[in-house]
Amino acid sequence: MKPACLVMGAGAGIGGTVGKHFARAGYHAVLCRRSDEDGLKRLVEDIRAEGNDATGFLLNAAEEGTIEERVHAVEAEIGPIEVVIYNLGAQIGNRPLAETSYKAFELGWRMATFGLFRLAREVCPRMVERGGGIIIVTSATAAVRGNSGQHSHAAAMAGRRLLCQSLNAEFSKQGIHVAHVLVDGMVDAPDTVGKMLGEETFEKIRATRGAEDGLILPDRVAETYLHLVNQHRSTWTFELDLRSYSDTPWFNHE
Amino acid sequence: MKPACLVMGAGAGIGGTVGKHFARAGYHAVLCRRSDEDGLKRLVEDIRAEGNDATGFLLNAAEEGTIEERVHAVEAEIGPIEVVIYNLGAQIGNRPLAETSYKAFELGWRMATFGLFRLAREVCPRMVERGGGIIIVTSATAAVRGNSGQHSHAAAMAGRRLLCQSLNAEFSKQGIHVAHVLVDGMVDAPDTVGKMLGEETFEKIRATRGAEDGLILPDRVAETYLHLVNQHRSTWTFELDLRSYSDTPWFNHE
Amino acid sequence: MKPACLVMGAGAGIGGTVGKHFARAGYHAVLCRRSDEDGLKRLVEDIRAEGNDATGFLLNAAEEGTIEERVHAVEAEIGPIEVVIYNLGAQIGNRPLAETSYKAFELGWRMATFGLFRLAREVCPRMVERGGGIIIVTSATAAVRGNSGQHSHAAAMAGRRLLCQSLNAEFSKQGIHVAHVLVDGMVDAPDTVGKMLGEETFEKIRATRGAEDGLILPDRVAETYLHLVNQHRSTWTFELDLRSYSDTPWFNHE
Amino acid sequence: MKPACLVMGAGAGIGGTVGKHFARAGYHAVLCRRSDEDGLKRLVEDIRAEGNDATGFLLNAAEEGTIEERVHAVEAEIGPIEVVIYNLGAQIGNRPLAETSYKAFELGWRMATFGLFRLAREVCPRMVERGGGIIIVTSATAAVRGNSGQHSHAAAMAGRRLLCQSLNAEFSKQGIHVAHVLVDGMVDAPDTVGKMLGEETFEKIRATRGAEDGLILPDRVAETYLHLVNQHRSTWTFELDLRSYSDTPWFNHE
Repeated sequence: MKPACLVMGAGAGIGGTVGKHFARAGYHAVLCRRSDEDGLKRLVEDIRAEGNDATGFLLNAAEEGTIEERVHAVEAEIGPIEVVIYNLGAQIGNRPLAETSYKAFELGWRMATFGLFRLAREVCPRMVERGGGIIIVTSATAAVRGNSGQHSHAAAMAGRRLLCQSLNAEFSKQGIHVAHVLVDGMVDAPDTVGKMLGEETFEKIRATRGAEDGLILPDRVAETYLHLVNQHRSTWTFELDLRSYSDTPWFNHE
Repeated sequence: MKPACLVMGAGAGIGGTVGKHFARAGYHAVLCRRSDEDGLKRLVEDIRAEGNDATGFLLNAAEEGTIEERVHAVEAEIGPIEVVIYNLGAQIGNRPLAETSYKAFELGWRMATFGLFRLAREVCPRMVERGGGIIIVTSATAAVRGNSGQHSHAAAMAGRRLLCQSLNAEFSKQGIHVAHVLVDGMVDAPDTVGKMLGEETFEKIRATRGAEDGLILPDRVAETYLHLVNQHRSTWTFELDLRSYSDTPWFNHE
Repeated sequence: MKPACLVMGAGAGIGGTVGKHFARAGYHAVLCRRSDEDGLKRLVEDIRAEGNDATGFLLNAAEEGTIEERVHAVEAEIGPIEVVIYNLGAQIGNRPLAETSYKAFELGWRMATFGLFRLAREVCPRMVERGGGIIIVTSATAAVRGNSGQHSHAAAMAGRRLLCQSLNAEFSKQGIHVAHVLVDGMVDAPDTVGKMLGEETFEKIRATRGAEDGLILPDRVAETYLHLVNQHRSTWTFELDLRSYSDTPWFNHE
Repeated sequence: MKPACLVMGAGAGIGGTVGKHFARAGYHAVLCRRSDEDGLKRLVEDIRAEGNDATGFLLNAAEEGTIEERVHAVEAEIGPIEVVIYNLGAQIGNRPLAETSYKAFELGWRMATFGLFRLAREVCPRMVERGGGIIIVTSATAAVRGNSGQHSHAAAMAGRRLLCQSLNAEFSKQGIHVAHVLVDGMVDAPDTVGKMLGEETFEKIRATRGAEDGLILPDRVAETYLHLVNQHRSTWTFELDLRSYSDTPWFNHE
């Protein structure tokens, strides 16, 4: 039985791509996403077509019990979860406070922060019992600084970043590697960034900035995630940032 | 009609003491806390005995509608809220992940993060319309780093810190001063710290460390809060830390 | 004999203005600057005209022995140095690496970092012996993030920021209050900012942005410095930021 | 002609080990260190024994002209410098301010900060002309927070960290990858840590903590350095931390 790599938020961007790379590396990729059953099927079939293992599930992480049940079922039916890729964001675009509803603010927290907490409660005891595991969290600039229109997003991402530090403080010594990856720039991700910007705009950006490697490529992100998994326990990374060579870091200005 | 200083979390520590100082400075202190009606009464009477204005309310900030109704009522019946002291914490002591319930994690967020969001939604438009105001948030070390046993606390406080940055980014230019105060050390606060440690232990600490000014004194915190309120708009502080001279900063080790 | 407030970098901006305020507060203002003897004289006379005490010295902080001798002489002839305002910057404008000479890089370090180290070596033992004192360092955005063209400036300011943390770690418990003030925005300072931008440009900015309090006012900075000096030792601030309400914090973008 | 990997600070710890790994990866390892000609010879011979290329040089980075001449000579005689490993520290152990001499403080800066500046001035224009290159800087906890006894070390390392940010801001867009690696823990490095602690103590630590992977292994650090070099320019890391699973991060306490 292969170990499982559980991907929460497995769209056509970082999540699905990382799943594919981990399937190649010998894991059973368990791909979870909220919607787009067809897209999910294609991802699973792509991986299987390469001779590797994948299973897809539609799952609303904001709903009670969903994450917990999925972990139980994967452990019982697919394999021990050795790798978690927590790839759920809480980006809802820029919205002034007056247009940020209670519901949106809470949903951001449920997806980005509380979802990881629930997942950690399920997988950490199992990982500790088995002697190890890794939880990689895909994060964003909003985790390190608030900004105009980011009331919901930044609060959720920053809460999650320190949750990762707390998880690391408790579980690192017990063999669980927690890694927080600051994705600081636009990702070449049609399912998320593409939909937020609109297809036409996104294709223009791909044809210009993207043509010169100005968009973060999910395949390359996956390489760094694999490196994190392969780090020896004497030399673990808790946090790293990723951005295109041509992009300006969050702490600089144009 | 005096302007109101709305204190959320007005116990015998920083909250109540800041309320008293602001009453002396000409505000009507509106003191809100979840429980201990007697303690609240004493606070209000103490302030009135000095010839100043105060009103107290029992209020559960985690409950729907409570903060919103209070803001409406204060504005209608007491005076325009010019100062907000957001003094609600989410400290539940150190608890390993397995002992941090969903309920505790969510409550931390409801008190520390979502409560400020709800309050900001109510007061910011009013402050903007009146040309200004100030929101001072009492924060803690947990807002800048997660730690063992701090799963709930650190996530809530860090989320709030970046919410403050987002509020500042949107509202500073509109005249609202947001200030995030990192209280990095033990406070001489019988109602919170005292109860968490137990009276006996707390009195011992007071008699030793406290006797040499090793506990942060709420009266002194209030002086810094007053200074923040008095800062000219050309020269505003967003963030500052406070600790005793004899204490070790969070970023150092013993 | 009045206690002395030693100001390193006492131009017509923050340094000189803080000196004036501290003179009003009962200190003998000892104003040191590298050049412009006439400007220095005017500052000293302004303070004396108010009935307060001030003495001015031309002093090149980058030169061997200058700071040390000044401390000795002030302590012997004027009064015990209870307050240090370290107001020397290392700003040389934006310069690409190829145009940043070895000399400029080293000078930045000599002025901003090494100068404070030398001064601390002289005053800290004296302050410890007398039971206390305060060192306030005027800092800048460059202390917390490097940027294009800031090779010299950011390296010097960041080195100094952590030197302040190291000084605080050793001397806070011995009664010396170290405070690092992040001045994050343009200051209404004709002697430094004015000269860097050119008089005409600077006057235009004053007449527009400045007219709406968009420039940090030295008089207001001085008020915060005085507050720092007056903080009780149970409740000291190590770091705070200052910027105009209308300015964008360094961690945000326009 | 192979491209050169220039290692500044090539002892038996991270520096030499990274050199060996890069030699295996096809670079000519150019190993520079201040002293211990025998140790240097052994390193070079070890690499050559594996059939790879290495050359060693004794070099005092604090001395005028040394770094510059080495760059010239390597470029002329060995190969284009595509990789720089800047591995010079400034650790002098914990020393109170009174025991930190001017010389020690300046030497820390010369080694850790100014040396990198000088090296960057030499290699950056060459890298830009050739379309790319990478500079990896081995850093330490002291780069992000000052501490008791760290007056010299922290000032030098923090200055260097922001110099790296400034270099990145100018040169990333021109194809130079700058990476700042926070080595946050004790390294299994006999030449530096071993000498600082004394051989006996160090061997004891190796036999206990080290036996359970509680010391950072230079071979594992080298793997992460190789990963950095192999990152695609769409997805570069500027900063990451490294520590043993059993160690406490700098931002936490024991």
